[in-house]
Amino acid sequence: MSTFGKLFRVTTFGESHCKGVGAIIDGAPPGMELTENDIQPQLTRRRPGQSKLTTPRDEKDKVTILSGTEYGITLGTPIGLQVPNLDQRPHDYGEMDIYPRPSHADWTYLQKYGLKASSGGGRASARETIGRVAGGAIAQKYLKLTNNVEIVAFVSSVGKVAMPFVHELEDEEPVSAEFYDMLNNISQEEVDKDITRCPHPETAEKMKETIMQKSAEKDSIGGTVTCVIRNCPVGLGEPCFDKLEAVMAHAMLSIPATKGFEFGSGFQGTKIPGHLHNDAFVRKEDGTLGTKTNNSGGVQGGITNGENIYFRVAFKPAATISKDQETASYDGAWGTLAAKGRHDPCVAPRAVPIVEAMAALVIMDSFLQQQARKASAALLPSVEIHHSLLGVPPKK
Amino acid sequence: MSTFGKLFRVTTFGESHCKGVGAIIDGAPPGMELTENDIQPQLTRRRPGQSKLTTPRDEKDKVTILSGTEYGITLGTPIGLQVPNLDQRPHDYGEMDIYPRPSHADWTYLQKYGLKASSGGGRASARETIGRVAGGAIAQKYLKLTNNVEIVAFVSSVGKVAMPFVHELEDEEPVSAEFYDMLNNISQEEVDKDITRCPHPETAEKMKETIMQKSAEKDSIGGTVTCVIRNCPVGLGEPCFDKLEAVMAHAMLSIPATKGFEFGSGFQGTKIPGHLHNDAFVRKEDGTLGTKTNNSGGVQGGITNGENIYFRVAFKPAATISKDQETASYDGAWGTLAAKGRHDPCVAPRAVPIVEAMAALVIMDSFLQQQARKASAALLPSVEIHHSLLGVPPKK
Amino acid sequence: MSTFGKLFRVTTFGESHCKGVGAIIDGAPPGMELTENDIQPQLTRRRPGQSKLTTPRDEKDKVTILSGTEYGITLGTPIGLQVPNLDQRPHDYGEMDIYPRPSHADWTYLQKYGLKASSGGGRASARETIGRVAGGAIAQKYLKLTNNVEIVAFVSSVGKVAMPFVHELEDEEPVSAEFYDMLNNISQEEVDKDITRCPHPETAEKMKETIMQKSAEKDSIGGTVTCVIRNCPVGLGEPCFDKLEAVMAHAMLSIPATKGFEFGSGFQGTKIPGHLHNDAFVRKEDGTLGTKTNNSGGVQGGITNGENIYFRVAFKPAATISKDQETASYDGAWGTLAAKGRHDPCVAPRAVPIVEAMAALVIMDSFLQQQARKASAALLPSVEIHHSLLGVPPKK
Amino acid sequence: MSTFGKLFRVTTFGESHCKGVGAIIDGAPPGMELTENDIQPQLTRRRPGQSKLTTPRDEKDKVTILSGTEYGITLGTPIGLQVPNLDQRPHDYGEMDIYPRPSHADWTYLQKYGLKASSGGGRASARETIGRVAGGAIAQKYLKLTNNVEIVAFVSSVGKVAMPFVHELEDEEPVSAEFYDMLNNISQEEVDKDITRCPHPETAEKMKETIMQKSAEKDSIGGTVTCVIRNCPVGLGEPCFDKLEAVMAHAMLSIPATKGFEFGSGFQGTKIPGHLHNDAFVRKEDGTLGTKTNNSGGVQGGITNGENIYFRVAFKPAATISKDQETASYDGAWGTLAAKGRHDPCVAPRAVPIVEAMAALVIMDSFLQQQARKASAALLPSVEIHHSLLGVPPKK
Repeated sequence: MSTFGKLFRVTTFGESHCKGVGAIIDGAPPGMELTENDIQPQLTRRRPGQSKLTTPRDEKDKVTILSGTEYGITLGTPIGLQVPNLDQRPHDYGEMDIYPRPSHADWTYLQKYGLKASSGGGRASARETIGRVAGGAIAQKYLKLTNNVEIVAFVSSVGKVAMPFVHELEDEEPVSAEFYDMLNNISQEEVDKDITRCPHPETAEKMKETIMQKSAEKDSIGGTVTCVIRNCPVGLGEPCFDKLEAVMAHAMLSIPATKGFEFGSGFQGTKIPGHLHNDAFVRKEDGTLGTKTNNSGGVQGGITNGENIYFRVAFKPAATISKDQETASYDGAWGTLAAKGRHDPCVAPRAVPIVEAMAALVIMDSFLQQQARKASAALLPSVEIHHSLLGVPPKK
Repeated sequence: MSTFGKLFRVTTFGESHCKGVGAIIDGAPPGMELTENDIQPQLTRRRPGQSKLTTPRDEKDKVTILSGTEYGITLGTPIGLQVPNLDQRPHDYGEMDIYPRPSHADWTYLQKYGLKASSGGGRASARETIGRVAGGAIAQKYLKLTNNVEIVAFVSSVGKVAMPFVHELEDEEPVSAEFYDMLNNISQEEVDKDITRCPHPETAEKMKETIMQKSAEKDSIGGTVTCVIRNCPVGLGEPCFDKLEAVMAHAMLSIPATKGFEFGSGFQGTKIPGHLHNDAFVRKEDGTLGTKTNNSGGVQGGITNGENIYFRVAFKPAATISKDQETASYDGAWGTLAAKGRHDPCVAPRAVPIVEAMAALVIMDSFLQQQARKASAALLPSVEIHHSLLGVPPKK
Repeated sequence: MSTFGKLFRVTTFGESHCKGVGAIIDGAPPGMELTENDIQPQLTRRRPGQSKLTTPRDEKDKVTILSGTEYGITLGTPIGLQVPNLDQRPHDYGEMDIYPRPSHADWTYLQKYGLKASSGGGRASARETIGRVAGGAIAQKYLKLTNNVEIVAFVSSVGKVAMPFVHELEDEEPVSAEFYDMLNNISQEEVDKDITRCPHPETAEKMKETIMQKSAEKDSIGGTVTCVIRNCPVGLGEPCFDKLEAVMAHAMLSIPATKGFEFGSGFQGTKIPGHLHNDAFVRKEDGTLGTKTNNSGGVQGGITNGENIYFRVAFKPAATISKDQETASYDGAWGTLAAKGRHDPCVAPRAVPIVEAMAALVIMDSFLQQQARKASAALLPSVEIHHSLLGVPPKK
Repeated sequence: MSTFGKLFRVTTFGESHCKGVGAIIDGAPPGMELTENDIQPQLTRRRPGQSKLTTPRDEKDKVTILSGTEYGITLGTPIGLQVPNLDQRPHDYGEMDIYPRPSHADWTYLQKYGLKASSGGGRASARETIGRVAGGAIAQKYLKLTNNVEIVAFVSSVGKVAMPFVHELEDEEPVSAEFYDMLNNISQEEVDKDITRCPHPETAEKMKETIMQKSAEKDSIGGTVTCVIRNCPVGLGEPCFDKLEAVMAHAMLSIPATKGFEFGSGFQGTKIPGHLHNDAFVRKEDGTLGTKTNNSGGVQGGITNGENIYFRVAFKPAATISKDQETASYDGAWGTLAAKGRHDPCVAPRAVPIVEAMAALVIMDSFLQQQARKASAALLPSVEIHHSLLGVPPKK
């Protein structure tokens, strides 16, 4: 359905050409300062038309908070958010509409619902992500204010051009010190310095070349987005079905055009032996435990351990290309779907704030769940607990 | 929490050393033949100790149906399932218990709950998956009976040894004809012919060598499991947050020891241009549409298109190894966690029925949801619907 | 939270003085004609200021469909609905605001959230019900079109003035033939003929007197609303926790100002012996079974049996009265909360469309759940089922 | 479905004659002492066969904790609970089985599922409540330990015999001082002194007479159960759909044989004017606010205010009677369903622990939700909040 989360819940609505898109954010803690200014920047980062690398259509997504705040403070009640669609006409049928667009949702929507929005995008349109990004911005603000949680995503590859020292490379130690360094230090500002949203300048240059070339060829290309979450509290995530990485995978694969997700050492981690993969514990400066390496990606047994959470998301090449395509029409006749318009040759740069938003929703919801547990356990009278349950030796 | 699914719901319970593990399966359609014999085979496939490649402990997981059937027929009411634990004593504290085991859940559970099961595994133990496999077996039976859905998983890589023609290889066309062929034809029987559960004999040999070597080195190694779902009905999966691949990713990453998930073309798909990645539509023999290639992995816009669904799951090297490890104790002192016992050097072969089970739960639940929609829409009186919503040209 | 339903889901937002109120309706079947004209009438019936019996403020609640339809047809995607608030300023603090209003939510909201909307109503305002009524109108349309379900509520008592032959009266047979007749025949049109929404003219006259008297006394009075659902399909409702009457009770008690709910024979049914209370089965004209009496209220074992569903909801006297009240201020000082403005002396007439809407949401959601089960069970291959499970004698 | 609750979740399984009934309790806080001894007493109170007023079948419901505790301490993981059925044979078809039993679930289950358990009860059997009572006992223990919450239910009427001073009586002030006194002081021990579980001795005597008479007449009679919850924390319950009384109504109407629910002043409250019904605020000894009267039943705007929560539940006369009944068979032929065996003439006394259990589940789940909100709001940095949101006058 159109709702994500258990205690911090985002419910979205809207297609490409309806009157507007938006969301209801339920469960935001009361007493937090919140205005449109906290939400608009991430929406603007998400917006197409920001550069020649992205689609030129300028949607000007201006968000309005309809409810849930007064005098700029959250009330704890549902926050209604809306962004009008500037082009509200249902699409008029054109010659090319006899073809379901390859690798789009036209045909599957028609199968699922018996009909589909007149413009192919419909609910599968990237416009649907506006509500998510808005909800994510609220979560990001809360997490930053209360736990200094920092969530930063960046483009780690475009086509075959990948940042060095990311964990895709073939070697024994899947994660390099340079990569760890970057995870520790990267900021949204740094990411936004380049229109590719790749923070490694040489790689960014090559990515631009690749994207421009695909654009010139009226083609598209995929890419990967890597995301790091710093200062995430320990203890988040539920054992069993709602392990943190499982919910994160759910969140990420729900973003349009995604094809893969890997966490910590990821696919590369399958290739190295256990003694190298295991993250030895070390005492941290503050006296608590941390891990020496971080192949676990900040999560062990589905539960955060306080180390950096990091993961990578695969985005396929955009299905909309400016090239003619041979394909069958709805009634099965083979023909040519003529291209029209110009299109975003690579969605990865625009996906960065969406990945951050979804990550924030996952952390926020897990945090609220764990707060319920922690606060309720804390009220129990102290009882003697067998040392085996506490990981300490028996008292002499 | 410990429940998966919306209309077909599996709720599990049980730790390593409690009296038993089990599950409640809610939402199984009434009127289906069902006995323990439908469930036990997958549990037995999941069981450790099946060969020298897996851990020698023989758990003899014998399932009992407690409720929800009479005279061997499902009543439509919750099916209670139970498997006793043969070793029910809580673990007694030993010298090595001063160390949280690296890359296990010992420390994170302690942080989350303030205490933990006496034996490190607790709820993070692989025994928890028994309930899932049991629930999955019921879903698999239903889907096979009603839609001839076939779900087959197999080991596609162990360490650096990978089956040829899987989509990890570097080339322009990510999915080869051979791979498609295998997806079309592979069966559980064929998979089980080799103890590695890799259906490609030469690769299986090499995998065995790798595993034996790691075993000799008292080490472990990861691997990947690929899964195909054939004959899945079209129209399953929900737009937006509950896209089929998103729920599948959630399901897969909730399996212990997983680190990654990719769907269809996956990470490799990010490297090829859109015109190659797009799956052109073709008329199938039965007159409906199919796709020429299947980079989409059977899902477009989050909704199944009737093509084979396939995906790959990364399993890290088992964290339990038979080697000493240097690490910090709970109180931060650096020391050596001495190894004891023999352990499963590679979890991938045993993970095969778990992957199949979770896949079945996802498809089953999506199927029930789509049945609700389809059946309710079918009751509506026929109205004239604008041709733009139907993907057909205007009537003259 | 702010979401109701599992497959047909209504999520609402909005306070008294924010920019607008509204809802997202998720799960509406695709292919149904739907415009604002299907929704507005129930909103208008809900609106205050319709007569001197209700509060004079005219809110002019004009609904806009933002998404989920095209060319006047539902797409199956979430339907965004919005109604602007005409008075959007946050309330400015006045002298009387030092008092939490007795039997309002001012104080409890402040305790729950640490702050509250500036105008006492906030989320507890009756304006929140707009989203429910809108969602209910969509459900009512679907149920009417597909199953000829008719949902009619009416005012059955105001203060001590009650319709005759309703089941509150003291006698052995709790439900009279006249009452059954009325349940069979009452229509929304007939209910709306009188501003009290009581379809029994003599009683309506007395109710008006009571309400006018309470109005003259600057006081308020409670009442009950009875609702009947005709032509509800058999088999709706889930055993155990989600029995139809349980979900209906949940729905009704979630309406502001409600204090009680009774189903079928209700509280009166506790007073008569089992042999009178039991509803004997009879063969109906169409050959299926019905019941001779209907003390069960159309539900047995939590599941609809095809008879009329009927229930009664208690509404307390409105907490807002035009009389001074002695009470403590937030800081505990005893004083007098001076009345201001004119208020609705009896909420029951306005509650009628809200009761209908919530009833429709419950039936709609149960219907979709049962469609999933029925359609999925229907696909199973036919097997021999032991006669004991079918309620038929053994074959000879 | 078979799950109740959001953060504290009870999932039950089991029919009358299957191998066992039980539940999984998910979300119990870690670190609480818990053994079967905490659960068994409420199960024993629920058990039939305790006196000649209840059915003579002695079920000896012995509960086993299968998981979720070690060394007598909750781990925070799901608690598996099981009670074996002593009579496990499916019912064999008898002559009387050609009749669906009037006001039982036989016919509706058959309609819903296409088949039904061989013994009519099936999932609608009172045995299903075992899992709820077990889950409720855990919640009761937690609430008592942490908040001194006391939940006491008692039989307030049987047939036309009602306790005096309960709120059904006709007068202007719906709730008497004597009733308030009783709510403040009643204990489970006092309730259990009489087998009717009515704590008012004279009334209890009359109730016994009524029940014995109905028993002699081979008939049954209904009754009401009143429940009070003392020391419930303020701020529980969610605005809008999940108001505390709405979820409580859901919980109560999900108990078999219930027909009504009223909260605080209830139906009687509809008859008195607003100025009498409103609960004026007063300063309590501890300086916080309380209310002078408690027509609200401890809840305002859906949120607890710290006063006693009280409500009343209607139980119909048991549908199983020891009298012959004229009714139609499954195929519509009119005939006589011959009685057999002896049956419980009044279910109200046995329902007492079930009502308490369901009440505990509601409070527990609401408590955990509010803990999440409160704990997460408490972490926010302090900001200046407009005085209108705090219910205080502007600073000079």
